[in-house]
Amino acid sequence: MDASPSNTTKRLTLLALPCVPLVQPGDDLAGLIRSALDASGETLQAGDVLVLAQKIVSKAQNRYIRLASVTPSDRAMELAEQVGKDPRLVELVLRESNSVLRYSRDVLIVEHKLGFVMANAGIDMSNVAQDGDGIVLLLPENPDAYCESLRQALASGIGGALGVIINDSHGRAWRNGTVGVAIGSAGIPALDDRRGDPDLFGRALMVTEVAHADEIAAAASLLMGQAAEGTPVVLVRGLHHAKRAGKASDLIRPRHKDLFR
Amino acid sequence: MDASPSNTTKRLTLLALPCVPLVQPGDDLAGLIRSALDASGETLQAGDVLVLAQKIVSKAQNRYIRLASVTPSDRAMELAEQVGKDPRLVELVLRESNSVLRYSRDVLIVEHKLGFVMANAGIDMSNVAQDGDGIVLLLPENPDAYCESLRQALASGIGGALGVIINDSHGRAWRNGTVGVAIGSAGIPALDDRRGDPDLFGRALMVTEVAHADEIAAAASLLMGQAAEGTPVVLVRGLHHAKRAGKASDLIRPRHKDLFR
Repeated sequence: MDASPSNTTKRLTLLALPCVPLVQPGDDLAGLIRSALDASGETLQAGDVLVLAQKIVSKAQNRYIRLASVTPSDRAMELAEQVGKDPRLVELVLRESNSVLRYSRDVLIVEHKLGFVMANAGIDMSNVAQDGDGIVLLLPENPDAYCESLRQALASGIGGALGVIINDSHGRAWRNGTVGVAIGSAGIPALDDRRGDPDLFGRALMVTEVAHADEIAAAASLLMGQAAEGTPVVLVRGLHHAKRAGKASDLIRPRHKDLFR
Repeated sequence: MDASPSNTTKRLTLLALPCVPLVQPGDDLAGLIRSALDASGETLQAGDVLVLAQKIVSKAQNRYIRLASVTPSDRAMELAEQVGKDPRLVELVLRESNSVLRYSRDVLIVEHKLGFVMANAGIDMSNVAQDGDGIVLLLPENPDAYCESLRQALASGIGGALGVIINDSHGRAWRNGTVGVAIGSAGIPALDDRRGDPDLFGRALMVTEVAHADEIAAAASLLMGQAAEGTPVVLVRGLHHAKRAGKASDLIRPRHKDLFR
């Protein structure tokens, strides 16, 4: 039995990029990120991962909806009554979702069209400018593809792998509080299959698939905060990931394999 | 409407302490951590958080069980047949749990006596030395209290708050893969209640409780890995947390408020 603890220092650094301006619809996020990197004196290195807050991607994609423009269906009216939410918001939640999983007073858990199980289809009103009537912000469209295009735009010149993640804060079953999770991912294995890797004692691990992109998303969330921090882009340096890249959609458990729906 | 993006650099550093020896039953983890800090040339600073892998706490507490010493009950025999696991392991899972929530072939989800919903009551055989018959390792006893005693042992002399977390890798509903979560916590707010904080536009956030200790646990997990990395202690530096401290048990959603049990 021969197990060797590590004697080398492993270090992970997360840097919240300063000087990222408030994002406007149509903004080129690759350009904004390049400028923010320049302003902070950082250059991208092979192996880096950029984590973007969902909100700035939604804003760049102009995923704003004015509530006054929404006419709630009968179903939305009825559900809104039961959960105690604005019927127009509930209408948008229904339009954005495949199905409603659970609801109770103040709680509406759905399967979003992207496959993610989450509250209110990820629609929220915080950090969204409002004047007069409410404006809400939907989740990004095609977040995995968006990450991939951003990765391609930013990876040129660094001569190695770059990861791009869009994170969002999700509630969970069983545990209080939200955590950052990946809703888009490119350039890294979102789900890291370590089955078969040797453990400290040389035996193969039996069942270990690690939600690698979710752990990165959670780590970045520590710097982004939820409130007024205004740091929506985090650079993560020092990660070691398997070469094989995947998507955040790999993190969605298929309905037929989920014992908790 | 006056929103100001950040102009200051925020940085978070995670350091996997080198030179942590394989932990033996009865080991003084505070002493081992002090030695590992010395070896790496690091001194604890106010605001630091130490994250310990669950396994080393279980080992220090001698939570080993030899499977040959376990006589499975009838119920364990029956359940073992249905899930396809060793009846003695299933017996231990039942002894460690309040209730069985779901099971199917290869899957056994329980509410652990500590309150955590998890697979196999957190019992595993990976990175546990075996000779002849199987030896398994149970979760630590009183992980919150263990963190608090470790915090007290290590905080003296740093003149400020120190956080201590025990992390473990848990599966989730709805999403594939495991993520690091906190099963013990002291010195920091495990659950960070930000309701009422202003958002970028000065409005109060409506529902934001952040599972702060879980996000730290996930971040540390990126450096610990699941397999042969042998780096069971991670020092996290640069976090900003509310002064109010809490426990990992704050992260457990009460059964009557959980729509997914």
